[in-house]
Amino acid sequence: MSSDGLILHGYWRSSASYRVRIALALKGLAYEQQPVHLVKNGGEQHAADYVKFNPQHQVPTLQHGDKTLRQSMAIIEYLDETFGGHALLPVDAYGRSKVRELAQAIAIDVTPLGNLRVQQRLGGRYGLGKDERFGWAAHWVDVGFSGIEQMLQLIAEETGQSRDRFCYGDAPTMADCVLIPQVYNARRFGVDMSQYPRISQVDAHCQQLSAFREAAPESQPDALV
Amino acid sequence: MSSDGLILHGYWRSSASYRVRIALALKGLAYEQQPVHLVKNGGEQHAADYVKFNPQHQVPTLQHGDKTLRQSMAIIEYLDETFGGHALLPVDAYGRSKVRELAQAIAIDVTPLGNLRVQQRLGGRYGLGKDERFGWAAHWVDVGFSGIEQMLQLIAEETGQSRDRFCYGDAPTMADCVLIPQVYNARRFGVDMSQYPRISQVDAHCQQLSAFREAAPESQPDALV
Repeated sequence: MSSDGLILHGYWRSSASYRVRIALALKGLAYEQQPVHLVKNGGEQHAADYVKFNPQHQVPTLQHGDKTLRQSMAIIEYLDETFGGHALLPVDAYGRSKVRELAQAIAIDVTPLGNLRVQQRLGGRYGLGKDERFGWAAHWVDVGFSGIEQMLQLIAEETGQSRDRFCYGDAPTMADCVLIPQVYNARRFGVDMSQYPRISQVDAHCQQLSAFREAAPESQPDALV
Repeated sequence: MSSDGLILHGYWRSSASYRVRIALALKGLAYEQQPVHLVKNGGEQHAADYVKFNPQHQVPTLQHGDKTLRQSMAIIEYLDETFGGHALLPVDAYGRSKVRELAQAIAIDVTPLGNLRVQQRLGGRYGLGKDERFGWAAHWVDVGFSGIEQMLQLIAEETGQSRDRFCYGDAPTMADCVLIPQVYNARRFGVDMSQYPRISQVDAHCQQLSAFREAAPESQPDALV
């Protein structure tokens, strides 16, 4: 298979895998996919053959030649520092900090609280049903998106950005790579996105690009649709 | 007060604030502290005067002149890119990815699940007592530290590092800034650290440096000891 020496171990509906797929597509990098099914067979992320690549039992893992890379935002910055093409972070320290701030506000303060393993523990150990588990996840999306909505407003005021726009500046960055998969999750959890007009605008703007559409969960070879 | 134009809004026992204090100390930067008490007065992070700096209602926030910076790892990378002195990330893309990978494995997959607001919701909404809440947090520390322990092992094999060592390479990096506060939290949650000899070694090694000791929660002006 033609690739830039890149193999992505991921799962179609994992938002961290989705982030990396967007980044790879934005940079125009070809890669091979190795699906890791997070539910089937007791969770393939726990298989011995996979854990040697990823001791956290998590996706994604990116192999680049003989290098093994983990953690989606670390992978995205590695791709940006290693390959040319579309830049996923600005060049100035302040702009970089704003892109990282937005990405981390989602990847740290929202995503982990709704992840599959957390939902499994809330169900298995604490007896929460599916509606309650989705309610738990939706709560943290609402808390997080309320903050992100304000942060996007502050950035728009600082930079004089137009309405139709990405998270930061005039081109997609790592912040968009992280935000869009969280919007996908928010819809799954039943969050009312009309509360978040700026986030919804960024989402609609990104969805016009083929890189975001090709990276979408339902477009992946392992998608169960 | 003498400072490098830096004001840190934080809380003594917040692990994200603690990370930034370590980074500031390692870089030898002077800063003014503005304590934000996360419990008193219904949580000062929710006060209107603070939320305008941090729409996420979280600590830390760092002001640098007229710039407002949020999210601890974004702040640490900003400091590293803006100020000279001790480098908190390696210069090569692969090394940088390893430091970010370790830092994110903790800051994303461990810390958020034990944070105060999550504990408050587990108690208020789901009726978990303090022991159960600490048990919840300790579970995610154990899951996370088991992975980190293996990742430190892989790095040691790759780089031929000695036993007495930091997370990556021969000097403290952002990974140590993130790991040490999580070890502090782990002890609070009652985690048996003897299960994690490599992490314990890194902790002991870091504690020999005054930068880590000065940044410790109990050394802060707002500490309730």
